[in-house]
Amino acid sequence: MLLALICAATQVNAQNARLTNYVNPFIGTGAVKSSLSGNTYPGATVPFGMVQLSPDTRDEPDWDAACGYDHNDTFIAGFSHTHLSGTGVAELFDVLFMPITGEIKTRAGDKNQPYSGYGSAFSHDQESARPGYYQVKLKDHDVNVELTAAAHSGFHKYTFPKGKQARVVIDLNHSMKKGNWGCHVVSAQFRMVNDHAIEGYRVITGWAKLRKIYFYAEFSKPVKGNDFVDGGTQYFNQTVINGTDLRAILDFDTDDKPLLAKIGLSAVSPENAKLNLTTEIPGWDFDKTVAAADAQWEQELEKIKVQGTPDQMQIFYTGLYHAFIQPNNLADVNGDYVGSDYAVRNDKNGFYSTFSLWDTYRATHPLYTLIQPQRDAAFVNSMLRQYETYGYLPIWQLWGQENYCMIGNHAIPVVVDAVLKGLPGIDAERAYEAVKKSSTTDHPGSPFKVWEQYHYMPENIQTQSVSLTLEMAYDDWCVAQLAKKLGKTEDYQHFMERSAYFKNLYDKSTGFFRSKDDKGNFIAPFSPLEYGGNGGNPFTEGNAWQYFWYVPQDIKGLIALTGGEKNFAAKLDTFFTLSSKNREVNGNASGFIGQYAHGNEPSQHVTYLYDYAGQPWKTQQYVNKVMNELYNTSSSGYSGNDDCGQMSSWYVFSSMGFYPVNPTSGIYAIGSPTMKKAVMQVGDKTFTVTAANVSAKNIYIQSAKLNGKKHDRVYITQQDITTGGTLEFVMGPKPNKSWGAKPADRPQ
Amino acid sequence: MLLALICAATQVNAQNARLTNYVNPFIGTGAVKSSLSGNTYPGATVPFGMVQLSPDTRDEPDWDAACGYDHNDTFIAGFSHTHLSGTGVAELFDVLFMPITGEIKTRAGDKNQPYSGYGSAFSHDQESARPGYYQVKLKDHDVNVELTAAAHSGFHKYTFPKGKQARVVIDLNHSMKKGNWGCHVVSAQFRMVNDHAIEGYRVITGWAKLRKIYFYAEFSKPVKGNDFVDGGTQYFNQTVINGTDLRAILDFDTDDKPLLAKIGLSAVSPENAKLNLTTEIPGWDFDKTVAAADAQWEQELEKIKVQGTPDQMQIFYTGLYHAFIQPNNLADVNGDYVGSDYAVRNDKNGFYSTFSLWDTYRATHPLYTLIQPQRDAAFVNSMLRQYETYGYLPIWQLWGQENYCMIGNHAIPVVVDAVLKGLPGIDAERAYEAVKKSSTTDHPGSPFKVWEQYHYMPENIQTQSVSLTLEMAYDDWCVAQLAKKLGKTEDYQHFMERSAYFKNLYDKSTGFFRSKDDKGNFIAPFSPLEYGGNGGNPFTEGNAWQYFWYVPQDIKGLIALTGGEKNFAAKLDTFFTLSSKNREVNGNASGFIGQYAHGNEPSQHVTYLYDYAGQPWKTQQYVNKVMNELYNTSSSGYSGNDDCGQMSSWYVFSSMGFYPVNPTSGIYAIGSPTMKKAVMQVGDKTFTVTAANVSAKNIYIQSAKLNGKKHDRVYITQQDITTGGTLEFVMGPKPNKSWGAKPADRPQ
Repeated sequence: MLLALICAATQVNAQNARLTNYVNPFIGTGAVKSSLSGNTYPGATVPFGMVQLSPDTRDEPDWDAACGYDHNDTFIAGFSHTHLSGTGVAELFDVLFMPITGEIKTRAGDKNQPYSGYGSAFSHDQESARPGYYQVKLKDHDVNVELTAAAHSGFHKYTFPKGKQARVVIDLNHSMKKGNWGCHVVSAQFRMVNDHAIEGYRVITGWAKLRKIYFYAEFSKPVKGNDFVDGGTQYFNQTVINGTDLRAILDFDTDDKPLLAKIGLSAVSPENAKLNLTTEIPGWDFDKTVAAADAQWEQELEKIKVQGTPDQMQIFYTGLYHAFIQPNNLADVNGDYVGSDYAVRNDKNGFYSTFSLWDTYRATHPLYTLIQPQRDAAFVNSMLRQYETYGYLPIWQLWGQENYCMIGNHAIPVVVDAVLKGLPGIDAERAYEAVKKSSTTDHPGSPFKVWEQYHYMPENIQTQSVSLTLEMAYDDWCVAQLAKKLGKTEDYQHFMERSAYFKNLYDKSTGFFRSKDDKGNFIAPFSPLEYGGNGGNPFTEGNAWQYFWYVPQDIKGLIALTGGEKNFAAKLDTFFTLSSKNREVNGNASGFIGQYAHGNEPSQHVTYLYDYAGQPWKTQQYVNKVMNELYNTSSSGYSGNDDCGQMSSWYVFSSMGFYPVNPTSGIYAIGSPTMKKAVMQVGDKTFTVTAANVSAKNIYIQSAKLNGKKHDRVYITQQDITTGGTLEFVMGPKPNKSWGAKPADRPQ
Repeated sequence: MLLALICAATQVNAQNARLTNYVNPFIGTGAVKSSLSGNTYPGATVPFGMVQLSPDTRDEPDWDAACGYDHNDTFIAGFSHTHLSGTGVAELFDVLFMPITGEIKTRAGDKNQPYSGYGSAFSHDQESARPGYYQVKLKDHDVNVELTAAAHSGFHKYTFPKGKQARVVIDLNHSMKKGNWGCHVVSAQFRMVNDHAIEGYRVITGWAKLRKIYFYAEFSKPVKGNDFVDGGTQYFNQTVINGTDLRAILDFDTDDKPLLAKIGLSAVSPENAKLNLTTEIPGWDFDKTVAAADAQWEQELEKIKVQGTPDQMQIFYTGLYHAFIQPNNLADVNGDYVGSDYAVRNDKNGFYSTFSLWDTYRATHPLYTLIQPQRDAAFVNSMLRQYETYGYLPIWQLWGQENYCMIGNHAIPVVVDAVLKGLPGIDAERAYEAVKKSSTTDHPGSPFKVWEQYHYMPENIQTQSVSLTLEMAYDDWCVAQLAKKLGKTEDYQHFMERSAYFKNLYDKSTGFFRSKDDKGNFIAPFSPLEYGGNGGNPFTEGNAWQYFWYVPQDIKGLIALTGGEKNFAAKLDTFFTLSSKNREVNGNASGFIGQYAHGNEPSQHVTYLYDYAGQPWKTQQYVNKVMNELYNTSSSGYSGNDDCGQMSSWYVFSSMGFYPVNPTSGIYAIGSPTMKKAVMQVGDKTFTVTAANVSAKNIYIQSAKLNGKKHDRVYITQQDITTGGTLEFVMGPKPNKSWGAKPADRPQ
């Protein structure tokens, strides 16, 4: 009914038909009543752009507002131009702009929470956002702020109150919490270019070891006066200032017209910052830039057209939006970029970074292989450039630099998957060299000589050993698949052997993967409910229950360890029902269904494992439960960090009815479609999924047809999708336990 | 007699005639019996090169061995490729190489003095050095080390003992004392290129805010095995390692042939490091590179040919050598360089840095204007590039970056002097813009708005106020001179007014320049003997006695303040005889004759001031005293830091008989020549100075002729020198008080 209304509205108002209208950038921006949020921000950005222009509600954002914004805050420090979406660490926040009226307040109050002195209260009823556009009224200054963005540029529109002194503060010392990861500004500069333009830069250390950010900004009105501040020292009406704690306060006349400010960023040079701006936003038409950003988003979102309830469509398109915010192209419009070795290089195809790979290899990159194949190839080629300059592929790559966040080497599945799926423009032999070297060159967290010696990770040599053993075995399986494709038989056999090392940590007596020491003894005491964090425990941000399921490369082998499908399914039943709320959990584990924690990545494929044990209706049941209960359209619409689109990608796939349990297999396990119809554009083909009779109650698959032919298998392949076609489901309120239950129907 | 012997030897052995033979790189390398040294190093370098390959006798050199080497030390940590000559702060020390035999010792012993674990004892009887060549026997490893250099390259020759494991350690974490100026390695890498080559880089913060150093090294024998170390973690036989505390230990076969290692550096990229090496040292002929370095030095030293005693010639040519070590060309062979804004730029004429301007504007740059005019123009154009990217000219520029060391803006005299003297290839209007902006744009230590408001620096607003008032007034006079030349009358008058502000701090009651507060009151108590350091006191590394004489732009005005020439000369007499040894002195003040402290720059022109008061014989007396007593050929041959050649340049000028008291005037006050003959090559002309009868006792000028005509003036001009000619002195054991004593003879 609601869907019908929407369809009707479409005919009346073409604008309403735009998919961008379904995006709600506030989803995931803040917890509600101590629930969790996605750590996403509401600001303006374009797909895969360098600039994300968004409000920061803290002076020094930390992990709990890693994106800079918390929907529960009532204060805005200003609008900075670069942000991370959904990460667990705060970083970037470059070149903060803040329009103010009157004087800057002196620093005072809580010394532990430095106060910017120019921030303002705001409320959500005077705030709005859509893709490429953000608006808020600053209460303290009575200024209406509108923001939009291009790939390397931000565009600000400030409507000041009449009769008050209009000022713009630019803060080059605004950052993540100083001292975290050694964060400090090494050098910074402001320079008045003329009475309409200011440029500058900052060099800053932090989670990204070293970043240079140059900017060039122009204003629609002349700067009438300027106050440059370095720490406590003020310099009035100077053309230049160098320092480390820099703010510029620029004065403007207030008249009937809003003040417009546009700014280009570059990691390479001040000249490139200007070139980026003048290329992307040559004029002063704010609305045109808003429309251009919207058009870019529309084009990307149209890769999948779904029909669902308004809430489902809002969650879906916001998810797709979040998945397309990054990876970010750090190369300037002329192709210049700074490599991982800090040397300037050039690639006209761009240089992408922000690779939160422990998260995004699971579903986000598989999603890219379907609807962003050219871009995913560019992502892979950017990762290969890290291999060339750094010696191994990214683990967590931020602003072109490795930060070794999380475990494993999950660029490997991404690279291998891209090659196996035939993405354009990737040199397969070069890719193989990269994945092999990344699997044999010891580096922090990846002691491969230990791996080869013990055939598991001994906890007393390498912490997080169980999680690492499981995940490393998977990466090895991926290397083996590419070796096989390229006819490297010896390598194939070796890496296949390594991919089975997970078995060496299986403890029959407890039925779990357990840590061993370097003598081969299981380490006691052991509780499958005990959580580890990011070191000092065999498990990574989870426990033995959650990590038990992590053998995507050999689910049959995992099932065999449990004694067969029946035991395996029973263990899944326990997993989804066993409560342990009275135990202390890791902060990243959230979104619980029993021990299942949808809020963090290790669990996210587990609902689909019933498919592999002949009980797909339970997959359908739990996948639906997750979609309905752990996603919503509020600011706490995610049950944990979105992690650069991984939580979103899970929903995008699952709502269409399938999910890449083994992300590098080209196999998608079927879950439970919630969209009445989904049409995916794959190159010049379309792949359509329909779900007849689907509703909140009709969640169980009764039958399925692929291209008109009966489809009892509980999976589809990459080829099924990319050759185009139609997958038709018929849904009902009760499980059809015979559908997909035969051994031959199991995902291969 | 000794001279005659040398001349005889010349005829026998042409090699001995080379001026490079007079250079003793050990002069100034270490104090003897608690005297002072020059903080110079004995290693291998070429004139104005990027690479200075020299032993470091400390693991973490600090201010007391700022050049890395102390002649009193008996330990060598290794041989790093970049050094500062004669500075008061330790910095650079990039890419340390150390040949060893056997295992690396574990870190132990004094925790406050970290031990490299691979260092070795050495003794001076197994050590030698000459320009472009250094040799030492490492006792602990029984390895003979020979070093030579090209502009961006180092060349090592290691002779290992037979039958022992030959190893080379490369340390990328060797640096100045960690934590000083926030010194720490941000990122570093080693990468085996093939079995003969290794490359890598480090990014490091410190006195230079941020430096990137890429290297590419080749060995004459294959690397048989390698151990990469990051802190406490070892990685054996890997091709790559990334980290912050990196060492590489490379194993080689030992055979009859020495192991050769050559290495190129770049601040831009690994490719450029390789390009620099392959361009400069394409082959493996160590002796050829030694000879090339020697030839480069010979060519530069031949700019002045002197005849003096062997000791005088050793001091003279070592001084010239020290003056020509820097400024250093940081641009790669293809012209690529990193600007002060950290962006990569290109200039085929090079990009020079290491500007210790508070020191070198006094005599070193005037010396360059005579015998290195093209290079001094390139230095000035490099300074102008800082103006373009940084907004004002350098104060102390290190590795392309400002560090604000010392006071004033003494690039101004250098730039103005170069333009006024017509050095080639400098845009005068652009230069004027730079000096004017550098004199009107407030920056740390230079609050020009305060200067314009008070007409002196009030100590309660700006510390070191008396020294700064005096030195800033001089810089302003320089700006005025260029304004005058360019017809900018208004500016000329304004800056001439500013150049007289020194008078506003003259205290008639004490006869000294004294600090005032912002109310115009002299600050009490006051003692002319009380020293200041680098802040918190009105005087900079000196006292009121030493700073009294700092009015080079208006010595007549200074004389008038004292009540006339007689009083002025009497005050000079007191200055050179007043002892105050029982008072605490600043560590930089040394080389005392009364209150005169030749070991630091503020005093260095004062011996020449008698010329201005009609008593030139006293100038002759004290100049001789300084040359004879405060310079020698030992490791403590300087009475204080050589300061990038300033102490050396004083000697070079003074031993020829003249000195630029006002460095930007083109006027050289005559002192007392100690060289029998000096022939200076100025372009295609020669200027010859002879001193008939000169000896240790015949130090007084009896008469003089310029180009055959009687010369009673106690000065010569830049034009006198650059047009070529001969200045003939007749010396004697007693003063001729009538020579140069008439008012018309005074320096103008």
